[in-house]
Amino acid sequence: MGGLGEIGMNCTALEFGNDIIIIDVGFMFPDETMPGVDYVIPDISYLEARKDRIRGIFITHAHLDHIGGAPYLIPKLGFPTVYATKLTDGFIKNQLEEHKLDRRVEVTRFKFDDVLKAGVFSVEAFHVNHNIPEGVGFAITTPVGVITHSGDFKFDETPIADTPAQFDKIKRIGERGVLMSLNDSTNVEKPGHTVSEIEIEKELTEQIRKAPGRVIMSTFSSLVARLQEAIDAAEKTNRKVCIVGRSMLKNVETCQRLGYIKIPKGITVDVRKLKNIPDRELLVICTGSQATEYSALLRMSTGEHKQIQIKAGDTVILSSSPVPGNERAVEEMMDDLFRLGSDVIYNKIYDIHTSGHAQQDELREMLRMLKPKHLMPIHGEYRKRVLHGRLANEEGIPTANVHILDNGKVLEVRGPDDVRLSKERVGGGLVLIDGLGVGDIGEVVLRDRKHMAEDGMVVAIATIDRRNGKLIGSPDIISRGFVYLKESGKLIGQARNRIKKIAQASGSRQPERDVLKNKLRDDLGDFFYDQTERRPMVIPVIIEV
Amino acid sequence: MGGLGEIGMNCTALEFGNDIIIIDVGFMFPDETMPGVDYVIPDISYLEARKDRIRGIFITHAHLDHIGGAPYLIPKLGFPTVYATKLTDGFIKNQLEEHKLDRRVEVTRFKFDDVLKAGVFSVEAFHVNHNIPEGVGFAITTPVGVITHSGDFKFDETPIADTPAQFDKIKRIGERGVLMSLNDSTNVEKPGHTVSEIEIEKELTEQIRKAPGRVIMSTFSSLVARLQEAIDAAEKTNRKVCIVGRSMLKNVETCQRLGYIKIPKGITVDVRKLKNIPDRELLVICTGSQATEYSALLRMSTGEHKQIQIKAGDTVILSSSPVPGNERAVEEMMDDLFRLGSDVIYNKIYDIHTSGHAQQDELREMLRMLKPKHLMPIHGEYRKRVLHGRLANEEGIPTANVHILDNGKVLEVRGPDDVRLSKERVGGGLVLIDGLGVGDIGEVVLRDRKHMAEDGMVVAIATIDRRNGKLIGSPDIISRGFVYLKESGKLIGQARNRIKKIAQASGSRQPERDVLKNKLRDDLGDFFYDQTERRPMVIPVIIEV
Repeated sequence: MGGLGEIGMNCTALEFGNDIIIIDVGFMFPDETMPGVDYVIPDISYLEARKDRIRGIFITHAHLDHIGGAPYLIPKLGFPTVYATKLTDGFIKNQLEEHKLDRRVEVTRFKFDDVLKAGVFSVEAFHVNHNIPEGVGFAITTPVGVITHSGDFKFDETPIADTPAQFDKIKRIGERGVLMSLNDSTNVEKPGHTVSEIEIEKELTEQIRKAPGRVIMSTFSSLVARLQEAIDAAEKTNRKVCIVGRSMLKNVETCQRLGYIKIPKGITVDVRKLKNIPDRELLVICTGSQATEYSALLRMSTGEHKQIQIKAGDTVILSSSPVPGNERAVEEMMDDLFRLGSDVIYNKIYDIHTSGHAQQDELREMLRMLKPKHLMPIHGEYRKRVLHGRLANEEGIPTANVHILDNGKVLEVRGPDDVRLSKERVGGGLVLIDGLGVGDIGEVVLRDRKHMAEDGMVVAIATIDRRNGKLIGSPDIISRGFVYLKESGKLIGQARNRIKKIAQASGSRQPERDVLKNKLRDDLGDFFYDQTERRPMVIPVIIEV
Repeated sequence: MGGLGEIGMNCTALEFGNDIIIIDVGFMFPDETMPGVDYVIPDISYLEARKDRIRGIFITHAHLDHIGGAPYLIPKLGFPTVYATKLTDGFIKNQLEEHKLDRRVEVTRFKFDDVLKAGVFSVEAFHVNHNIPEGVGFAITTPVGVITHSGDFKFDETPIADTPAQFDKIKRIGERGVLMSLNDSTNVEKPGHTVSEIEIEKELTEQIRKAPGRVIMSTFSSLVARLQEAIDAAEKTNRKVCIVGRSMLKNVETCQRLGYIKIPKGITVDVRKLKNIPDRELLVICTGSQATEYSALLRMSTGEHKQIQIKAGDTVILSSSPVPGNERAVEEMMDDLFRLGSDVIYNKIYDIHTSGHAQQDELREMLRMLKPKHLMPIHGEYRKRVLHGRLANEEGIPTANVHILDNGKVLEVRGPDDVRLSKERVGGGLVLIDGLGVGDIGEVVLRDRKHMAEDGMVVAIATIDRRNGKLIGSPDIISRGFVYLKESGKLIGQARNRIKKIAQASGSRQPERDVLKNKLRDDLGDFFYDQTERRPMVIPVIIEV
């Protein structure tokens, strides 16, 4: 349903007879072609129409591109049971709580080695590594064979706050025979193997140790390993830990309550009580590594944070990489932090971040362990899935057995030798969420927003006497985002005269209103373009009194 | 004047007594905070007010961030003499021609070893490598000492369609004693040395050789070396060359005319005569490596190119890297090309592009050769200039002698031991160009554009009887980019009723119009937010008849 053409809104459905299971219910952040939009979710109307057949929603891990759609999608699907590991459950609950849905959704927690029955399907998890603990893939035994779904994965033999992937179990699944694998393609362009989290821990600890003053570290608030590493480094270097930012406090609280983060007693300090802590004895862990509006670090960088003012001697550590689309904002924030005199340690110049997604060696390893007959590359733009297919070719899977789909397409699997793309379409669209509106923003609204963003708009109002069609008074012109009005008196005056002329010439016949509107739109559009080479949206309004 | 806080609009001025010289007159493309803007140039009003003192404009090389501002800035500066090498002159002429200014600007061509006098200044060029031939830096002898400007540079011992940098000359300048160097910081984050163009040539030739069908190569239309390499590879592999795209044709014509690109006789073929050429015997060189609107490759990727339809068996080579801000557009174009069945060779997976900017080893080499007492890092965001300063520290230049300025600031150089930041400001602002308007778009217009892009706008029109202040008829509501109107009848109806109520309550007193407008704006703003959690721009209009 989602997650094939983009990084985000992951959602896959398996259907057999009267049974449907769903893997992940993610959302996506909008790109620059969707101004004003808050989130994007997949179009699941096909599943909505069949909600009585849904036997469960299985969640691979607790990132928003896999669980963020829960508050929007689960109600539409009729509240089926959600299956998740303990930590993932904790994060989903937080997500649902914000929409007051936590009591309405039933989450069944599972352990790595549980076998879950859902209609004709039998679902086994296998643990994989990722940038959040307890990530899993699924091996789903169906009436036609075993289908695996990797989730977002990498392999790490020495993870932090997590256990290594279940290599033996994955191999055993492979030995039993896999008809098809759906594997993460995010990092297929990168050769080699991801750096282990233990290497990141070393560098991070070293940077915190050698910092001459305060350390302010920011990372993804769900990157549990990194938070644990920072807390451990603070303990080793005799620093107090101050946690700042709403989502960071919330996630740390959740992880600590569920046992995923261990915080030594007495090491934390409240942000309002920093005055008494010497600079050399303080580590701040905060939100803002993506320079998101209102985030703690962004506010520090602009001098707008209440309690923490950046100063010379501070060391800011960005233990993260900018999510595509955020690059410019993150770079500006770094510049501001440097300008305030702090040193900034970031991933382009130090090894203080590692990706959560398998690189080429790990992708090959997964294929060698599972030995699937077919591969459907998932998670990643089209080109990445093509490249993943080529890598699979090298591992012995022929091109005919590599299936590169688009959102909303259906792969019919009738047996190991009968896998083909159906002509049926079951969605594939984007549903935009803007404020309280889910799905009401479409092409027209977005097109208008983009038009007004490019060249602004002009409303031309002519008031007309309904008895004789004559213009009353002078036309009104309202303009925003087009020209600087205070300096454009002449232009607006000329436009007003053109409206007068056209309105007067249109005579007294009433049915000509639409003709008049079109004339005004065309004439003013051309006039403004001639004068400015800009094409504002021109909206003619005729008021009859 | 420009080029310190951004990559683009490079422009530096040196002033002594009654003499001013200017180095480069670049423009910048707008970022996403400037919707609708075409170009950005630096605010040069300080120079404008002193134009009788300008002794020349010295151009380092022919890229748009160094010459693109010429048509806008040179007239403001009173048409001073422009000094440029032959190729750079050719590109400037093309630029000026489009604005019908080529006959009004006097360009004096210089050779690498000419010494140019300009008031008290004596200007010597030194050749450096870059992604366009004939790039130079300048050593400027001033009454207080020698100041060097690196231009955009890298070092390449084996360039294509260019000669290696003048290492000996740069060393000799260094031996004579340099007071201060202004050096390119673009690639300071990258360790090592840039890959030589000769390596790129090898890989590019190999890729063209092994392509099974047509090859469509795109690169920057000013990347002369790459164009020459492609033409040479075509000759070696018995392919005809078809050049496509307005700027590509123009630049190739200019370079061929001036002797910088050599095209074997009979190898080129017109795009309208491709029918007869077998696929294995064709190389298309086209614009579009940045997925710019209307560019040739973008149109091919969307099936909108008249003569060239992408098909299975085609190999598309992107011999470039996406300029920051274009990443998403380029990735989408690649996806479309893959979907059409072509193979796409790009710089993330093959070595078919190299940067034009010095990496750490080359930055050190420049400092070791010039041995400047002071360094002013230029070209690059603040953080990069800080890092360049640290690298200089390691090369023996103390932090006190590293000067990190912002656009519009002045460094007073009275002698080798007296260099300091002045309190004076001489600009630093951005001048936005939108259509025919240069500088008329400011904060207000941009803010309105962004507001309307985010949440749209609502114009609420109440017609009022001027004799008694009574509302006439029903208020009109015009909305764009806010909600989908066809499905929002109820919302608009409720808003109309609120306008009626407020207008009727406001009574007959005429001075209350502004109060009424504010009331309408606030009430409707709150109402719409309550109902939708969106904040459209609300524009109340009162028409009195």
